[in-house]
Amino acid sequence: MKAEIIAVGTELLLGQVVNTNATFISEGLADLGIEVYYHTVVGDNPKRLEELLVLADSRSDLIVLCGGLGPTDDDLTKNVLADHLGIQLVRNQAALDHMNEFFGSRDRPMTPNNIRQIETLEGGIPLPNRTGLAIGSLYLGEKNNYIILPGPPSELKPMFSEQAAPLLVEKFGVHEKLTSRVLRFYGIGESQIVTDLAEMIENQTNPTIAPYAKPNEVTLRITAKTEDDASAKTLLDQVEAEILAVEGEYFYGYGDDNSLEETVVNLLKEHQKSVTAAESLTAGAFQARLADVPGVSEVFPGGFVTYSNETKENFLGIDSTLIEEYGVVSKEIAGVMAEKARELANTDYAVAFTGVAGPDPLEGQPKGTVFIAVAQKDGETVIEQKAFSRDRAYIRQSSVMKGLDMLRRAILNK
Amino acid sequence: MKAEIIAVGTELLLGQVVNTNATFISEGLADLGIEVYYHTVVGDNPKRLEELLVLADSRSDLIVLCGGLGPTDDDLTKNVLADHLGIQLVRNQAALDHMNEFFGSRDRPMTPNNIRQIETLEGGIPLPNRTGLAIGSLYLGEKNNYIILPGPPSELKPMFSEQAAPLLVEKFGVHEKLTSRVLRFYGIGESQIVTDLAEMIENQTNPTIAPYAKPNEVTLRITAKTEDDASAKTLLDQVEAEILAVEGEYFYGYGDDNSLEETVVNLLKEHQKSVTAAESLTAGAFQARLADVPGVSEVFPGGFVTYSNETKENFLGIDSTLIEEYGVVSKEIAGVMAEKARELANTDYAVAFTGVAGPDPLEGQPKGTVFIAVAQKDGETVIEQKAFSRDRAYIRQSSVMKGLDMLRRAILNK
Repeated sequence: MKAEIIAVGTELLLGQVVNTNATFISEGLADLGIEVYYHTVVGDNPKRLEELLVLADSRSDLIVLCGGLGPTDDDLTKNVLADHLGIQLVRNQAALDHMNEFFGSRDRPMTPNNIRQIETLEGGIPLPNRTGLAIGSLYLGEKNNYIILPGPPSELKPMFSEQAAPLLVEKFGVHEKLTSRVLRFYGIGESQIVTDLAEMIENQTNPTIAPYAKPNEVTLRITAKTEDDASAKTLLDQVEAEILAVEGEYFYGYGDDNSLEETVVNLLKEHQKSVTAAESLTAGAFQARLADVPGVSEVFPGGFVTYSNETKENFLGIDSTLIEEYGVVSKEIAGVMAEKARELANTDYAVAFTGVAGPDPLEGQPKGTVFIAVAQKDGETVIEQKAFSRDRAYIRQSSVMKGLDMLRRAILNK
Repeated sequence: MKAEIIAVGTELLLGQVVNTNATFISEGLADLGIEVYYHTVVGDNPKRLEELLVLADSRSDLIVLCGGLGPTDDDLTKNVLADHLGIQLVRNQAALDHMNEFFGSRDRPMTPNNIRQIETLEGGIPLPNRTGLAIGSLYLGEKNNYIILPGPPSELKPMFSEQAAPLLVEKFGVHEKLTSRVLRFYGIGESQIVTDLAEMIENQTNPTIAPYAKPNEVTLRITAKTEDDASAKTLLDQVEAEILAVEGEYFYGYGDDNSLEETVVNLLKEHQKSVTAAESLTAGAFQARLADVPGVSEVFPGGFVTYSNETKENFLGIDSTLIEEYGVVSKEIAGVMAEKARELANTDYAVAFTGVAGPDPLEGQPKGTVFIAVAQKDGETVIEQKAFSRDRAYIRQSSVMKGLDMLRRAILNK
């Protein structure tokens, strides 16, 4: 089955909104084994949309339209498609009830225009909107099939996943499906990993290997095309083992939703260890990142943000002569910050950050110079110096990631 | 001049990458007064790309192609376009020199395939690639004009802004141009602002008013279409005044790159005031956000992350009986956290956060319950209770924004 996605909205053509809907639907259709051949964006213009529908009919079996289901006169997707198919729009009673309930519970009155949102294609299967008002539709034609979805991602996503996707499986069955596994790496760049694995990436057709660079980490998405889950697992296990034979040193976890901080918090819990921090450069970003993980309170009591020399002295009790002697951006101060914080918070580990975020140099140290220390209850303090590049935000973000990885390796004795 | 954008890449159709390039180029073309009528995404398939070029020729004056300029056999954009135009690809000497220099300074050897990246359209204007290897091109045809840009945003963006856009102005002149101004609001939702300004948004054609909801704030982009900058300013000033007459209470600043934290840091500098923080719920996120702003050290010495009861007692000196009496998520504890932190850091203001990020309730308080306090050297402590919804990340982010706004209002005595 060949599919294409048409997003309707002038705001997309003006560059005011990114077309993440096409990405989301593409991923969802890939999971069902339905191949997407085109994405198109067109403005709120009936003539151009009608021309696109004629073109889409000639090349695709399934045409997914998103956007243009709102209450205003600009919102014309349903009207154009109904005209194109020679059918009527009809009011959907369930959607009308849902709308009455919505406005009943609010001060805002329903306007006559809102009624447009509960109109749907005659003969189509209505797709209820759990998170909004505009109803969607799946229309099975003789040759082509159409799905209409609302534009706001908060409405489109649940409608696609909960309503449209199960109907597609029911009506068309799922053929060869795509199964993905994401491997996450820290400490190696995308260009290096691609160079190391060049031959594998090039020759590998099933599973495919797709590298993706995120700030300070690289993920590899390996995707198998199979008829069942068991053979997908076998294929993915095999190629994963080949990849880790080369890059295992940098691998830290699985999954699109995983992260270095989640891995670290889980390791701390597993080993029943706790951590604190003293942050100059990063000013709380490391601790905030740890606390992004639910249940972190088990392993993290709190810590210090010591941005100025005075707070390093007053909060942590660091001797001012030490700062004068070594400079605040130094191996020595990073080490003592971590050690003092660990003692004060009485934890197993403490991570400390001092460095130059820029834009200006500090005490003769260039922008990007960073010292990170991990103090340990049962072990020596580990200190690393880094020279990060790019802007302030990137230097601080890179430092947080490096601190997380140093802590991970300390816990694992790596 | 009518334009369209064609992005080439199977990864886009698989939903693995979002097509942010089309958004970026659209915005850039809008600034030049060039209207974009279509975005299309097509896979790495010569036949489908050639069909698209035939279609694009029939409807657009300027066709911008992005992606598919890499060194591998999948990368075929230039070859398909050259065939389509009946011209040759030629090597570009400057790009070859740049490439030799690049590989000369690295361990990585140049592979024969890399040569493809320095080939460009015969008779076209080469677009040097400051941040990568693949050269781009502007080709002025008899009827249609073409721009070829590399796929990675880090290469595409500078090539478009620094090379392609100035050439477009030189070759075609800039006609009526679009000038935008962004107004930023905190404390009001998008639906409310759209309701309040419904008539204005609907009837206003020049400037247009486009609302955009970001997490915890709303921006209005007002865009004027004029021949010169002075008339743009007049139009924008006028509609801004009308908007602020209704929503002035929530307005905090201008600009796409502005933020509540930048506004607050600038206000602190202006008033020569300093701030610290004691963060439970937000665990450093408030302080890290402040320190996103360069030069924050003038107004922010550091602060505390007091996630557990023990650190509230040990770091801030809060009496444990107080926590027992009122509960840790309470108006009283928020207030005393702020006051103790302000004394310890000797600042003009201190902001404190305590609350329930979830997923589970705490001490009988439901997820989303938050108390935020601002202690002041010259004034009473201000404390607000909020009930935020959604997930952990959103509750913490909402709290940071609310704390920033409370601090902003405290500085302004609002």
